Amino acid sequence: MPDLTEKKISTEIIYQGRLLDVRKDEVLLPNGKSSTREWINHPGAVCLIPILPDEKIALVKQYRYPVLNHMIELPAGKIDRNELPIECAKRELEEEIGYRANKITYLTKIHPAVGFANEKMWIYLAEDLEKTNSKLDEDEFLDFFPLHLEKALEMIWKGQITDVKTIIGLLWLDKINRNKA
Amino acid sequence: MPDLTEKKISTEIIYQGRLLDVRKDEVLLPNGKSSTREWINHPGAVCLIPILPDEKIALVKQYRYPVLNHMIELPAGKIDRNELPIECAKRELEEEIGYRANKITYLTKIHPAVGFANEKMWIYLAEDLEKTNSKLDEDEFLDFFPLHLEKALEMIWKGQITDVKTIIGLLWLDKINRNKA
Repeated sequence: MPDLTEKKISTEIIYQGRLLDVRKDEVLLPNGKSSTREWINHPGAVCLIPILPDEKIALVKQYRYPVLNHMIELPAGKIDRNELPIECAKRELEEEIGYRANKITYLTKIHPAVGFANEKMWIYLAEDLEKTNSKLDEDEFLDFFPLHLEKALEMIWKGQITDVKTIIGLLWLDKINRNKA
Repeated sequence: MPDLTEKKISTEIIYQGRLLDVRKDEVLLPNGKSSTREWINHPGAVCLIPILPDEKIALVKQYRYPVLNHMIELPAGKIDRNELPIECAKRELEEEIGYRANKITYLTKIHPAVGFANEKMWIYLAEDLEKTNSKLDEDEFLDFFPLHLEKALEMIWKGQITDVKTIIGLLWLDKINRNKA
């Protein structure tokens, strides 16, 4: 199989935002020509599948400004500088829904936007939950939206849950359950 | 349920790239305070699940510069200006793998990066394929990487296929097949 690697010639930070960092790199293509690649430098993120004591999944509903819509999602958040994904998972679980998990299991890692961002997202199953005090970020607003897995899966197949991390997390849990059955 | 809508106060194009258009908006939060939202304006994209005459799925392997890795993916591409998603699907099928489909079925629409981009992606099942002449984009390089669904699913569960559209497309096909069985 031929080597399709694109090699970096130079890189430039085009925009340094509060959350986004936009890069423009000059790259050497496999055919020896050069081209530019514009991409978003992302710190990475985690996504949690929290199983509540009543076996519902702790989903959240929030307004997502980029898509101008309310979205039903698994709790998630960006990794802070020098934070490990597992530490971020514990922090986000408490910040977003106010729970601590006695059992957290790493499931998989996904790439949400390979065409234009380096974002990686680690997905964790959070079980044996205990209520703590929610410490929501100041400019983050969300509604707790717990659903049984069967209902959430139905919403995926009907196109009512369209967020990729949420679809993948829920289908992963369904697969785990089917393997157990 | 409270209204969590964030209302646009002003918008600014911070960077207009070849493919990316970065915006910075001032928004009014549900609590009456204002905040900024940085986001990527994306034209939208399509993703195809092409079923080859031998029943393998026509996946492709390509180097993705933002993640500095070769990725196994379903064929996909950005929607051109004034192009309908279904037209884009037909064009990408021919450009990326050199096939025309006599049957294309819309499956669902997903949101890959709700936190920082408005990207929507339409997923189509492409069946009854006929070979044409591949017209690959000049600075796009990819390897044809056909796999049987069972093998591709195994690679998902092992974390070897990590691209979100590919995971969702393949699991959607698996669900269709399980419903038929």
